[in-house]
Amino acid sequence: MTDPASLLDDLRARLDRVAAATGTEAAAVLTDPDTMEPYRQDWAQAPNPGRPLAVVRARSTQDVQEVLRWATAHAVPVVPRGAGSGLSGGATAVEGGIVLSTEQMRDLVVDPATRTATVGPGLLNAELKRAVAEHGLWYPPDPSSFEMCSIGGNVATNAGGLCCVKYGVTTDYVLGLTVVLADGTAVRLGGARLKDTAGLSLTKLFVGSEGTLGVVTEIIVRLIPAQPPRSTVVGVFPDVVACSEAVLSVTRRIRPAMLEFMDTASIRAVEADLRMGLDTSAGAMLLAQSDATGPERAAETELMAEAFRANGATEVFATEDPDEGEMFTAARRAAFTSLGKLGTLLLEDVGVPLPALPELVAGIERIAAERDVAIALVAHAGDGNTHPIIVLEDDDPDRAARAQLAFGEVMDLAIGLGGTITGEHGVGRLKAPWLPAQLGDDVMELSRRIKSALDPQGILNPGAVL
Amino acid sequence: MTDPASLLDDLRARLDRVAAATGTEAAAVLTDPDTMEPYRQDWAQAPNPGRPLAVVRARSTQDVQEVLRWATAHAVPVVPRGAGSGLSGGATAVEGGIVLSTEQMRDLVVDPATRTATVGPGLLNAELKRAVAEHGLWYPPDPSSFEMCSIGGNVATNAGGLCCVKYGVTTDYVLGLTVVLADGTAVRLGGARLKDTAGLSLTKLFVGSEGTLGVVTEIIVRLIPAQPPRSTVVGVFPDVVACSEAVLSVTRRIRPAMLEFMDTASIRAVEADLRMGLDTSAGAMLLAQSDATGPERAAETELMAEAFRANGATEVFATEDPDEGEMFTAARRAAFTSLGKLGTLLLEDVGVPLPALPELVAGIERIAAERDVAIALVAHAGDGNTHPIIVLEDDDPDRAARAQLAFGEVMDLAIGLGGTITGEHGVGRLKAPWLPAQLGDDVMELSRRIKSALDPQGILNPGAVL
Repeated sequence: MTDPASLLDDLRARLDRVAAATGTEAAAVLTDPDTMEPYRQDWAQAPNPGRPLAVVRARSTQDVQEVLRWATAHAVPVVPRGAGSGLSGGATAVEGGIVLSTEQMRDLVVDPATRTATVGPGLLNAELKRAVAEHGLWYPPDPSSFEMCSIGGNVATNAGGLCCVKYGVTTDYVLGLTVVLADGTAVRLGGARLKDTAGLSLTKLFVGSEGTLGVVTEIIVRLIPAQPPRSTVVGVFPDVVACSEAVLSVTRRIRPAMLEFMDTASIRAVEADLRMGLDTSAGAMLLAQSDATGPERAAETELMAEAFRANGATEVFATEDPDEGEMFTAARRAAFTSLGKLGTLLLEDVGVPLPALPELVAGIERIAAERDVAIALVAHAGDGNTHPIIVLEDDDPDRAARAQLAFGEVMDLAIGLGGTITGEHGVGRLKAPWLPAQLGDDVMELSRRIKSALDPQGILNPGAVL
Repeated sequence: MTDPASLLDDLRARLDRVAAATGTEAAAVLTDPDTMEPYRQDWAQAPNPGRPLAVVRARSTQDVQEVLRWATAHAVPVVPRGAGSGLSGGATAVEGGIVLSTEQMRDLVVDPATRTATVGPGLLNAELKRAVAEHGLWYPPDPSSFEMCSIGGNVATNAGGLCCVKYGVTTDYVLGLTVVLADGTAVRLGGARLKDTAGLSLTKLFVGSEGTLGVVTEIIVRLIPAQPPRSTVVGVFPDVVACSEAVLSVTRRIRPAMLEFMDTASIRAVEADLRMGLDTSAGAMLLAQSDATGPERAAETELMAEAFRANGATEVFATEDPDEGEMFTAARRAAFTSLGKLGTLLLEDVGVPLPALPELVAGIERIAAERDVAIALVAHAGDGNTHPIIVLEDDDPDRAARAQLAFGEVMDLAIGLGGTITGEHGVGRLKAPWLPAQLGDDVMELSRRIKSALDPQGILNPGAVL
C-alpha cells in the first residue's frame, strides 16, 4: 500500500474510527496543495521545504497516536507542528511526509491549589499567561513571540524569553507531559508534583527535543505567584562593547528581572516602523527591570542606573510607571518584525557565558564588516543569549552567499567562546550542520543512540537537530 | 581472565597507567574486607548487601573512565557511590562488583561573573554552600543531610530539601555535567550557560538517574544571590489533618520560603534527644519561613500566622530572629537522627499533589493503626513531599514483617492519590519493586530502552531503579 491515495484512505479510516470511538469530530486531513502551503514552513523560511503528503490537524492524544501508528506501519515521516512560529526550521515540511499540527489541541485547566496548569500544546503562550493571571498566578517563560507561539512549540524548543535572566526557561516550569512515541504509544510522564524523582527524568528529556523523540499532547506546568510591578531603567550607550560591559557590572551584583539589549540598527528599524520616540543616535541601548519589593527595589534600580553611567551611558532614564516600562519592552520585542520589513532576515540565537559577551559582540561586528553584510543585534543580554540578525535589503546573490558564510561564522565564534549555537530557538534544520561542532562526536553519538532507541525507523521530524 | 586476582591486577595496572600519564597518585583499590565493609551500605541499610570485589576511590574523570573501560571489558557491575548518605539503597554494594567512590573528587571553582560553580561530585553540599556564600551567592538545594551528603549524590537522586517549596530541586540548578558512560567514554554536557537548547536535554536526563546511566564526575551548578534573612512562624496543632489543611491555606495564597511539618512522634523524639524545649504535647507542628523583603515580608508572615490560627492552631509563634528560626529548622532536620536512636527505621519519601495531603496523612495514620507499627511523620509539607518513618523499637520479627507491609502500603496509597513513591531520595533498591506501579508498563519499557541504549551490558548499578 505505497500509493499515496491508499495511504491516505487508510489514515482517514483510522482517524474516523478514533472519532467514532470517542464521539468527536474526526481530525481534518488536508491534502489540497494551496491549503497545505502555509504548513510547509515556519517563520525561519528554511530553504527547500518538502511537499507533504497531508496535513493532519489533530484534536486529541488519540488522534496523534493513530497518526503515528499509521506512520510507523507505512514508514512515513512526521513533522510535528505547533503555531509555526519557530525560528530554526524545526517544523519545515518533509517531502512526502505528514505535517502533524497540534494547533487545535487547546485544552486548559488551571489548578490554583497545586499552582499548576494542564495545557494542550496548541494553546498560545499569551493565552496561558492571561488565564492564570485571573488566579493571581504567573507562567514566566515569555518568548518575544508570546502572542503567537504555542506552549507545545515552547516545550519542543525549550523556549526562553526576556524573563529568563531571573526566572529560567521552559524546562524549569514543566512538571509533566503526555507524549506519543513513534509507535503510537502514549506515555504520561511526571505530574502535578513539585518534587518527583521516581525513575529516569524522562519529562525533561522530551523538553527541547524538537519533535524528534515524540509528540507532546499535554503539558503540566508549574505556576508561580504574579510578578510584582516592575521598575525600568533605560541606558543609552555610545557602542555595543561599552553596553556589554555594563551588563556584566549589573549581573555580577544583582539578578535583574530583565536585562535586554538593542544595537543601533535594531533601534532604528523599530523607530522607523513604530515611531516610538527612541533615540536613533544611540550606539546601543540597555533595558533593565527590577521586580524586587521594598527597599531592595530602589536599591536595584539605583544600582543598575549607576552601572550604566559607570560604563559610559550617555543617558540613563528610570521609571516606576509600568506602562512606560512596557513601551520600551514592546520596542525590544518588535525588533524581529521591524527588521523584517527592511528585507530578508537570517536569525541567530547564539549564547555565551556572560564574561565572553563583550568578545562575542565585538566578533559579530568584525564578521559583519569582513563579509560586508548588515548584522543587527538584539539580546537577552543578562543571560548571555544574543540574537544577531543578518538583514538582506536587496536580492544581490553575492551578498546572500556572504550572509550564509557570516551565519555560520557567528555560530563558530560562539562555539569558540564556550557558547551555544542556540539559547532558546532550537536547532531545527537551519542550525543542524553546526551542532556536531558544539557537542562533539561523543555527545552526537550518545544523542543518536537515544534517538534510535525511541524512534528506530527515524520517522519523527527527520532532518531536524540530529 | 575471570579469576578475581587477575581481574584486580588488570584494574590496578590500568589505574597506574592513568597515574603515570597524568602525573598524579593512583586511585586506591581497596580489597580488604574490613576496609570495604563501610562501602557495602548507604544509610538505607538495604537487606543483603553484596560483597564487592573491590572499592575504588577515584581521583579524576580519567580514573572513572579507566574503571568503566575495565568493567565493560570484563562485564563487572559497578555501583557508583557519593558520600553514602543515600536513603533508598542506591549505593548498596553488588556481589562481585566494584564500588566506585567519588568521595575524593572534591574540586571546586566558583565563578561569580557567570554566577556558576564547577564542582567535583565528592564535595559536600554544605561545603559548596559555604564556599559560594563568601561571594554573596547561594546554592539553594538543602537536603536535611546537607552537612554530610555530596553534590554527586544530590545529582544522582535529584535531591531536594527544605527550600524546594520556593526554590526548586537539584535539577533546577544543574547547567552542565561531565559524565562517564558505561564504556568509559567521557562526555561534557551543557555548560556555564543559563540558556542552551542545542541538541537533546541530556544534562537533565542524567540528573536523578541514580548511577544507572553513567557516572557524573563534574557538575556545573547555577547559583543565585544570597537569600535574605528569613522570618519564622511556628504553629502548634492538635492533629496532623488540621495541620495539613493549614498547609493548603498557605500555599493557595503565597509561596513560603519553607513550610515544614513534624508530627507528635517526631517532635517527641527530637525533644528527648536534643532538649530544645519543643512542645511535646503538640499533635503536630508547622514551621514556616518567609524570605520576602519590604512590606511583603510582614504581609507573608502575618498571612501564615493567620492561616495557622484559622485552621485550629492552639499556639502560633512568630520571630524575626534568624537564630531562633534556625533552632526550629535544626529540630526539623534532626528528626531522622533522633528517631534513629529509638530503633530501626524504614524511611519513606512519598509525595502527592498538595490537595491530597490531608488524605495522605490520614491514610498513613490508618496504615499505622492497622499494621500496629509506629509511623512518625515529617514532611516538606509545602510541596506535598512527606517522610513517613516507620520506627521499630524492638526485634519482634512479626512486627518487622508488618512494617514491611506498611512500607509498601504507604507507597501504594501515594500512587493511588496521584503521587510519587519518591520525591527526593530516589528509588534505589528499596523502592524499585514499587516503581512499575507508579510509572506503568509503557514508561518502564521506555526507561529500559534508554537504559539499554546507554548501558547495553547492564553493568551500571544493576538492581537499582529499573
